[in-house]
Amino acid sequence: MSVMPSFVPSSDARPDCELCRSPGGRLIAQHGAWRVVRVEDADFPAFYRVIWQAHVAEWTDLDVAQQHECLGVVSAIERTLRAILAPTKINLASFGNVVPHLHWHVVARFDWDSHFPQPVWGTRQREVPEGAATRLACDLLLLDDAVRSALPPIGGGQPGAAAAKNP
Amino acid sequence: MSVMPSFVPSSDARPDCELCRSPGGRLIAQHGAWRVVRVEDADFPAFYRVIWQAHVAEWTDLDVAQQHECLGVVSAIERTLRAILAPTKINLASFGNVVPHLHWHVVARFDWDSHFPQPVWGTRQREVPEGAATRLACDLLLLDDAVRSALPPIGGGQPGAAAAKNP
Repeated sequence: MSVMPSFVPSSDARPDCELCRSPGGRLIAQHGAWRVVRVEDADFPAFYRVIWQAHVAEWTDLDVAQQHECLGVVSAIERTLRAILAPTKINLASFGNVVPHLHWHVVARFDWDSHFPQPVWGTRQREVPEGAATRLACDLLLLDDAVRSALPPIGGGQPGAAAAKNP
Repeated sequence: MSVMPSFVPSSDARPDCELCRSPGGRLIAQHGAWRVVRVEDADFPAFYRVIWQAHVAEWTDLDVAQQHECLGVVSAIERTLRAILAPTKINLASFGNVVPHLHWHVVARFDWDSHFPQPVWGTRQREVPEGAATRLACDLLLLDDAVRSALPPIGGGQPGAAAAKNP
């Protein structure tokens, strides 16, 4: 597996913002403009976040080129989850009601998961006694590697370079 | 106010898909590739959907040019809601767990609304006795007009041409 990158706060980090101060999940890759983390959630093991590094609240605080860059990262994660896990559905969302720092949720959903077809923020529909992670087609650390390898590179080059360039 | 467009199903409409068969809300504008509707929800009156006209399930079923077109529509709605309503937060989401036909939710959220800071699919936090619509800075039909005018045009020309070209 690849070396895990270390979290480096943005130069404009705000001390009162949780996503400025801390990674917001298990850090998968960090780029100049964004980072990707995996949310460690027992109900939804294949749950990644794309977090914009600079402190902005809303999607349209990004210019169009930044939006395309950010959505390129979201799409790369979605494609990887679809290819490896064959989920029932992918869920994408950007809320920020609690932490108004731009971040996208990318979640692989399965018709057997604890909340399906409700959103992950909705009402629990069932228990998954053996644990959701055990039902995935792939070990989570290998999934992290696949996600990392699929991310757009920094300044050209091969996908995966973003993670490799971080210590 | 502008003339309301009529819903025209896609040529690949599936009879078993709710978003192929019906508008999915109050139709604001219809383009070759997408349409915009307003969801009539008493708790969240400023709630729009961008629905991809062709029956595809996932975001990455669109090619990159289509993704950019679709997100351009989402962004235009977000900018309009921010400019007119000054919401506490904009919420964006694409789930499709119940109706797996690509659509984006664009919702203006307020710190006084029934569910804030929970997502609109979460747990109700409070009642808004006078009704949420009465607290908006703008009448909903005028808001619809502003959203329609802000949408990207079909094949160039001025914003708003998309709606005007539909009967």
